[in-house]
Amino acid sequence: MDYAKESLRLHQQWGGKIEVVATVPANDQESLSLAYTPGVAQPCLAIRDNIDRSYELTRRHNLCAVITDGSAVLGLGDIGPEAGMPVMEGKCVLFKTFGGIDAFPLCVKTQDVDEFVQTVYNISGSFGGINLEDIAAPRCFEIERKLKEKCDIPVFHDDQHGTAIIALAGLTNALKVVGKNKEEVRVVFSGAGSAAISITRLLLLAGYRDITLCDKFGAIYQGCPQLNWAQQEIAKVTNLEGRRGNLADLLVGADVFIGVSAPGLVTPDMVRTMERDAIVFACANPTPEIFPDDARLGGARVVSTGRSDFPNQINNVLAFPGVFRGAFDVRARDINEEMKMAAAQALAGLISEEELSEDYIIPKPFDPRVVPAVAEAVAEAARRTGVARI
Amino acid sequence: MDYAKESLRLHQQWGGKIEVVATVPANDQESLSLAYTPGVAQPCLAIRDNIDRSYELTRRHNLCAVITDGSAVLGLGDIGPEAGMPVMEGKCVLFKTFGGIDAFPLCVKTQDVDEFVQTVYNISGSFGGINLEDIAAPRCFEIERKLKEKCDIPVFHDDQHGTAIIALAGLTNALKVVGKNKEEVRVVFSGAGSAAISITRLLLLAGYRDITLCDKFGAIYQGCPQLNWAQQEIAKVTNLEGRRGNLADLLVGADVFIGVSAPGLVTPDMVRTMERDAIVFACANPTPEIFPDDARLGGARVVSTGRSDFPNQINNVLAFPGVFRGAFDVRARDINEEMKMAAAQALAGLISEEELSEDYIIPKPFDPRVVPAVAEAVAEAARRTGVARI
Repeated sequence: MDYAKESLRLHQQWGGKIEVVATVPANDQESLSLAYTPGVAQPCLAIRDNIDRSYELTRRHNLCAVITDGSAVLGLGDIGPEAGMPVMEGKCVLFKTFGGIDAFPLCVKTQDVDEFVQTVYNISGSFGGINLEDIAAPRCFEIERKLKEKCDIPVFHDDQHGTAIIALAGLTNALKVVGKNKEEVRVVFSGAGSAAISITRLLLLAGYRDITLCDKFGAIYQGCPQLNWAQQEIAKVTNLEGRRGNLADLLVGADVFIGVSAPGLVTPDMVRTMERDAIVFACANPTPEIFPDDARLGGARVVSTGRSDFPNQINNVLAFPGVFRGAFDVRARDINEEMKMAAAQALAGLISEEELSEDYIIPKPFDPRVVPAVAEAVAEAARRTGVARI
Repeated sequence: MDYAKESLRLHQQWGGKIEVVATVPANDQESLSLAYTPGVAQPCLAIRDNIDRSYELTRRHNLCAVITDGSAVLGLGDIGPEAGMPVMEGKCVLFKTFGGIDAFPLCVKTQDVDEFVQTVYNISGSFGGINLEDIAAPRCFEIERKLKEKCDIPVFHDDQHGTAIIALAGLTNALKVVGKNKEEVRVVFSGAGSAAISITRLLLLAGYRDITLCDKFGAIYQGCPQLNWAQQEIAKVTNLEGRRGNLADLLVGADVFIGVSAPGLVTPDMVRTMERDAIVFACANPTPEIFPDDARLGGARVVSTGRSDFPNQINNVLAFPGVFRGAFDVRARDINEEMKMAAAQALAGLISEEELSEDYIIPKPFDPRVVPAVAEAVAEAARRTGVARI
């Protein structure tokens, strides 16, 4: 199927993928007096006296804002706020379908960090959580950090953390398959944007030690010119041996390749230079850094992509619906690192020792166990770390 | 029924009065590829190339934001943004039930005019229209004016214009009942806030000439101390004879009383001093400035209140659902004065000469003819005045 053409035709026919519906009656004077004036004054006063009651008396407890500035939409780049909305609506459909969450799409008409932050903060009292989406790096890091400081509800940039959670889950199981330890493996990234940096941070937190990022200019190392501030920070805790060179140079002797970059950057010959039992996560979408058959040709043992037509699909629906479901279930104030780690562990743990294989390291996107398992683990971690309201 | 107690109980049980639902499938790989990646890239690119296509390819064409700062919620005053949300959700229920409009409630955490305006402008690309609600005067005037200048979608402060449309409609028919002309009647207001000022502006536009506003300090006149800037402006075009005195003084010889103020300010004796065939609109809610029986005791011929248990109820559901329905049907860039006038005329016109009586000057809130008639008139006025996109 020509997805592009058919999707455009369907979007025209659909005229939007979400709808806001009323869940209470307002079709006669009495129902109006209860859902609206004069009765509604009473719940208003209850919230005035205790803002936490907004979680009980309005839809806030289940409402997530899905917000972009349109600056890095899919692989399309900076296409503008309104043009990002079909993706935001699509994300809201996934939130509802997978997580039972009422998600509402918003686009923000500014690329100024502080103005974006102030705008989102100003409307944060309307929601139980905020999912940031498709915002260009390195602005996305600063925006998320500032919003997390200001808001008392979870703020989660899915392009960073969703991907990070699934990559960590997949890598956890891939290492089991090949019998290597996270403390000893050498990991090389292609890409040094928000996904690469965020996966790296979560891997470091999980105990991985030897990670090197590489962008189109070559290895990222401390003191390297042309780095933005986020890359400078990650350079302090990665590539501790100060390796130089391009991706081909870096892959020599590496155990794990994680690609979050561009199509076709890796060849079978490059994989051949990696350690035995190499693990290749080629996540560029829809065309990966290397196709699975080619990676295996080069000797890779475990291969993962973002595509549904190959095994081990890294698909964000494995993470964000369960992460927010768990956060909302305990009215969390934050989604912290412990909650992300718990989500990754829960995902990895869904595959038993017996089931685990080279072609089955991550649950499938439509596995009905995923959301409940992730949600439960996230909620438990929220309670344990003191960010749960209930 | 104790509406306050029962409403609180129901709100607790409901846990919100709206829900965001998905209207397209995302339950297998193919549907996901069409509603989300990779297919969704195509509608994104179509909007990038022509922002107007956001009305076709996303829900924008039917989406209205219902926005407050929580500063003047019902008669409860400044109770804070989150505490205003039960009213906003209720309003969204009415938008959907009466107008078929997807309305989404938002509260904004600032009372700074420019910050509020910037926040709402920044998210305006997500919506087809903006309904402002329960914002204190005179800030509400400045906010609305600035937002109308910046935004290319309709911005409508319902507390002002909804009430003004219905008051004009009711007064049009009340004058027919008593056989007086709008150019000759003397109108006296109790109240000088957003509703009073907005009704006054629409009445002046409709051809009324002699209007005097009165607040708790007495008549509003040019040069009067203690006026805010909005009152100073309205003082230039009202009370041209420079009357002074309190409400009782001003009512002597008046033809029309419009109360948008506080309970019980008018007595039968005060009505008795008005002209013969006096018209009394006592809109303070739930307790009017004077109850209908008392107004009639004082000689009033046509009496209207905001209450459902008396005839001639002035209820905002008569206006805003049809006004936005009409504006959305033609993708209007604005809701201008001509559209408001058209709405009022359409409302008044629903009552035929034969039906018209002292107790039937305004259609009832649940009259199914109301929304279609208002919507059609508003859409026609939008086309006529060049603010319709289609």
